[in-house]
Amino acid sequence: MAGEKHAPVTVIGLGAMGAALAEAFIRTGHPTTVWNRSPAKAARLMEKGAVHEAAVEAAVRASPLIVTCLTTYDVTRRCLGPAVEALAGRTLVTLNSGTPQGAREMAGWAAEHGAAFLDGAVMSVPEAVGAPDTLLLYGGDDATFGDHAAALRALGGDTVHLGAEPDSAALYDSALGGILLPTLLGFLQGVALITARGRPASSLAPYAAAWLEKIGAILPALAEEVDTGEYGDPASSVGIFHDGIESLVRDSASEEGASIDVAWLAPVQDLLRRAIADGHRDQSISVLVELLRRPGRTA
Amino acid sequence: MAGEKHAPVTVIGLGAMGAALAEAFIRTGHPTTVWNRSPAKAARLMEKGAVHEAAVEAAVRASPLIVTCLTTYDVTRRCLGPAVEALAGRTLVTLNSGTPQGAREMAGWAAEHGAAFLDGAVMSVPEAVGAPDTLLLYGGDDATFGDHAAALRALGGDTVHLGAEPDSAALYDSALGGILLPTLLGFLQGVALITARGRPASSLAPYAAAWLEKIGAILPALAEEVDTGEYGDPASSVGIFHDGIESLVRDSASEEGASIDVAWLAPVQDLLRRAIADGHRDQSISVLVELLRRPGRTA
Repeated sequence: MAGEKHAPVTVIGLGAMGAALAEAFIRTGHPTTVWNRSPAKAARLMEKGAVHEAAVEAAVRASPLIVTCLTTYDVTRRCLGPAVEALAGRTLVTLNSGTPQGAREMAGWAAEHGAAFLDGAVMSVPEAVGAPDTLLLYGGDDATFGDHAAALRALGGDTVHLGAEPDSAALYDSALGGILLPTLLGFLQGVALITARGRPASSLAPYAAAWLEKIGAILPALAEEVDTGEYGDPASSVGIFHDGIESLVRDSASEEGASIDVAWLAPVQDLLRRAIADGHRDQSISVLVELLRRPGRTA
Repeated sequence: MAGEKHAPVTVIGLGAMGAALAEAFIRTGHPTTVWNRSPAKAARLMEKGAVHEAAVEAAVRASPLIVTCLTTYDVTRRCLGPAVEALAGRTLVTLNSGTPQGAREMAGWAAEHGAAFLDGAVMSVPEAVGAPDTLLLYGGDDATFGDHAAALRALGGDTVHLGAEPDSAALYDSALGGILLPTLLGFLQGVALITARGRPASSLAPYAAAWLEKIGAILPALAEEVDTGEYGDPASSVGIFHDGIESLVRDSASEEGASIDVAWLAPVQDLLRRAIADGHRDQSISVLVELLRRPGRTA
């Protein structure tokens, strides 16, 4: 049945994201079976047409394609424990966050039990699941992805297969996930700055969102510099950032500066100083990747 | 002449950004006079129709609106030194980056010399100057902004007056500027991760750009939490980020992790630990603004 437009699908794990995945399958006409450790969460989905199975094994036997959305790979293996015999000959797709190593272990476990395997990452909030521009990344066997691509596209129009290595999605998910917290901290520091002046945080958000789009637009050029190893003729040099952060930290003694805690930037300042000391002042900021690759000195 | 569609404009400072500003004025039909310390940079603009003045005073006298794009406020005052008498009755608009305090000092200096004053920030690269969606922020007297808004819109369709305080643009520029480096470091750390696995940096850039757009989309909700002080019922809790970063740092002992230097995240880890200790585990990540507002403990 794999590859058919409305192939049956089982969704295991009905948190906010898992429920959104199940709903997207239901909405696109896939016969959808659901299972959750606490069955109460299935009620809303049953109203929309899902079949609920109380036993995980029955849920697995209901479909050739099993999509799990649990907190970790460990939890996934534990939940699927009573259903391992049913996995043989089916395809397991894990959509939790985790490390590449975790994804590789998960792939080994699936193979042991005779299941084809894909690991994926949903690069969106639950509310955006199923939208045409929602990005989902997958890693795993080419043919397995090909068999289920049509069904998986129900979860997001921007569905990408990154390669046959089963940890590909976890690798890119880790790389992307690491951008979130520093970006949010940068934003919250800005919020601290403007709210200290009586301006609401909401007045910064739209400009910050527009600004993040501009930053996104320069990433391909930075990536190109890294790939070619040519860091000369930069749009944004190490020196500019170095001087900027030195002045930011110096200004933290000033009226506005006193209102914010820039201590979290100290190792960034250290990183830029090291880059200058290594002769990178007039090179692109992207050269910092060379320093991030090294085992770090601790501050 | 202020307020007319094609009011004469003088641009002082012809680096990449200043030249782009002058070009945008020329393109939209404003009689444009230019000055630069090293006059060679004016040649290309003269070909496009700019008038070049070798003396800064003559350049200032040529237009009711003087736009400067120099590296700092100090440099701006130094360059305008020989032209202070000519400034009386004209409008000076500074478009360099700088601190709010610097903008206030600049406003005082302009007032001393009888000039109306706006301080602005160009939130784009030179290549995007003049585009319909290019964002420029301004602070300063309402009537002065009103007089020159039509001319200033030549520099970008998304031209915003943030208020009468002359340091408004510098305040928001500082707040937004602080987002750039942490975001780029997050990206470069991801690049270090995937390139260690033989994947090109360019394969991450488009996903990272899409990811930054998604992050931008959640900022209004975070800002709302800060403005209302209601950090409960979070989409992304302190606990999730805390556990994520603890696991990232732990994994830096693993195969992939060994390839990247996470030392720059140590104070972020410390910040999250303090937030947990203060009882914020189940609150939104936006509550970190409360910690960023405090004088920081040093690590």
